[in-house]
Amino acid sequence: MTKRGMETILITGGNGFTGRHACRYFASQGYHVVSVVRRIGEEDHGVQLERCELTNAIETSNLIQRLKPSYVLHLAGQSNADESWIHPVRYMESNVMATVFLLEAIRKHAPSCKVVVTGTILQYPVKENSLPPHPYSLSKTLQIFASKSWASYYDLDLVIAKPTNLIGPGPSTGVCSILAKRVAEFEKTGVNDILTHMDLEAERVFLDVRDAVSAYHELFFMGEKGREYDVSFGTTASIGDVATILSSMAALPFDVPEEKRKGIPLQPANGSQELKSTCTFTLEESLRDTLQYFRNL
Amino acid sequence: MTKRGMETILITGGNGFTGRHACRYFASQGYHVVSVVRRIGEEDHGVQLERCELTNAIETSNLIQRLKPSYVLHLAGQSNADESWIHPVRYMESNVMATVFLLEAIRKHAPSCKVVVTGTILQYPVKENSLPPHPYSLSKTLQIFASKSWASYYDLDLVIAKPTNLIGPGPSTGVCSILAKRVAEFEKTGVNDILTHMDLEAERVFLDVRDAVSAYHELFFMGEKGREYDVSFGTTASIGDVATILSSMAALPFDVPEEKRKGIPLQPANGSQELKSTCTFTLEESLRDTLQYFRNL
Repeated sequence: MTKRGMETILITGGNGFTGRHACRYFASQGYHVVSVVRRIGEEDHGVQLERCELTNAIETSNLIQRLKPSYVLHLAGQSNADESWIHPVRYMESNVMATVFLLEAIRKHAPSCKVVVTGTILQYPVKENSLPPHPYSLSKTLQIFASKSWASYYDLDLVIAKPTNLIGPGPSTGVCSILAKRVAEFEKTGVNDILTHMDLEAERVFLDVRDAVSAYHELFFMGEKGREYDVSFGTTASIGDVATILSSMAALPFDVPEEKRKGIPLQPANGSQELKSTCTFTLEESLRDTLQYFRNL
Repeated sequence: MTKRGMETILITGGNGFTGRHACRYFASQGYHVVSVVRRIGEEDHGVQLERCELTNAIETSNLIQRLKPSYVLHLAGQSNADESWIHPVRYMESNVMATVFLLEAIRKHAPSCKVVVTGTILQYPVKENSLPPHPYSLSKTLQIFASKSWASYYDLDLVIAKPTNLIGPGPSTGVCSILAKRVAEFEKTGVNDILTHMDLEAERVFLDVRDAVSAYHELFFMGEKGREYDVSFGTTASIGDVATILSSMAALPFDVPEEKRKGIPLQPANGSQELKSTCTFTLEESLRDTLQYFRNL
């Protein structure tokens, strides 16, 4: 039930890594949060849970018709590039068609709803004579192209958020989470495979997922219809830097080869110039919370 | 049943305008033709008919697994730009996902099959910061982008044919057919609305559908994997020129304003330089056959 006077935000993929943080954040901001999930599990963040298979056009249409949300944050989708080579159709269905079904339902049943669709930095610049590097990237590229087209054809109040590598506590499969999980296991078992198959010199821009969620909130109000916005403020660091920070927090010592560290202080990344949102979590704070999440699992 | 020694070509949309000509042509060339249709009607061109809803991944997979064709000519799809504004999801399902399901089935069950996917000149060059003009164009753009991606990812022997305006006898909704149908009705009823709502000065490249089908045949053998080929040889003429030619064939006289005729002789269009296929039907012959088709209906 919608509480009196509260605006409804519908968050797809509400039990995913970003979704869990988004549900908590928007609830704390006074919204009535509806978390849309494929299967209702044990998690409950004090929000309304709705089961919906978004790859089913009718289920999605019924959901939007019934709830008529004022805001939709579309986070749901598949995001594993390796897996996408094996199951490319699943990626087209989950990332492209589910988004099309959602936007079509919004056009019909909630046409003044504000929408943020989340792309990714792995989304490919769309060009003639060049193709995305894998089916996951293809699916994100087509998702965003179709979203922008729907926004243009049907005058939807929609913007695209293109986040960088999001980090923080929760069920992420990103490199920081893999490292933090290995450190937590090392603390429990003494088995050190922390740096196995890690490209320590590779640099990334890391942004705390909680700061990304604040930026999505901002985009509902400042975004220009149909445009893409980089959500890429954060901290530039190498995987070696991340490992070095985690080693300083670990209960058992482990070594990171000195030549693999780029060195601290780390560089703040250039974000979108239009966004006012900034980092409120340092990389160290994000990694401490991530490590603690895996220690508590 | 496949006849001994014949190679199987599967033609999707086999009962459509191009499909009917393609079935006849490939049968005449010694192929075992399987015409894939949504609903089995009365038409039968001496080919094997198979009912399949191509927007259903399982039906499509079962079809390809059972028939294991050597060639697939993919003609099926929706092609009405006006209608696409009302039912955009149907265009995404029929043009994008049906193609993805078909290519996925080929990858799994007939990986050495030669494939021609037909785009259109209304397909849009995929560019950053510009969008296709309507949902039909969007669907064709994404269809071709996904097809090229599948060909690249999974090494499929696939080319894209981009035909110009195809004309000739049969159930076409193109401008020449509309004019020929009106002339045939005028001959029967004496009611002349032949030129109503016609932009007589607009120029088009017209190609007989039977010549386009020969070009598709050529593309199975000369096409370079993953590439797009214009099938745009033919005749450049204005709608006024077409009306003038039809008026010379009509049993009852009707006038085309002189200033709306570009004048004959008409110009041959520039085709793809790689294709050897040429026009074997003049514009007059195509229009005569089209008019006769509507007289006989």
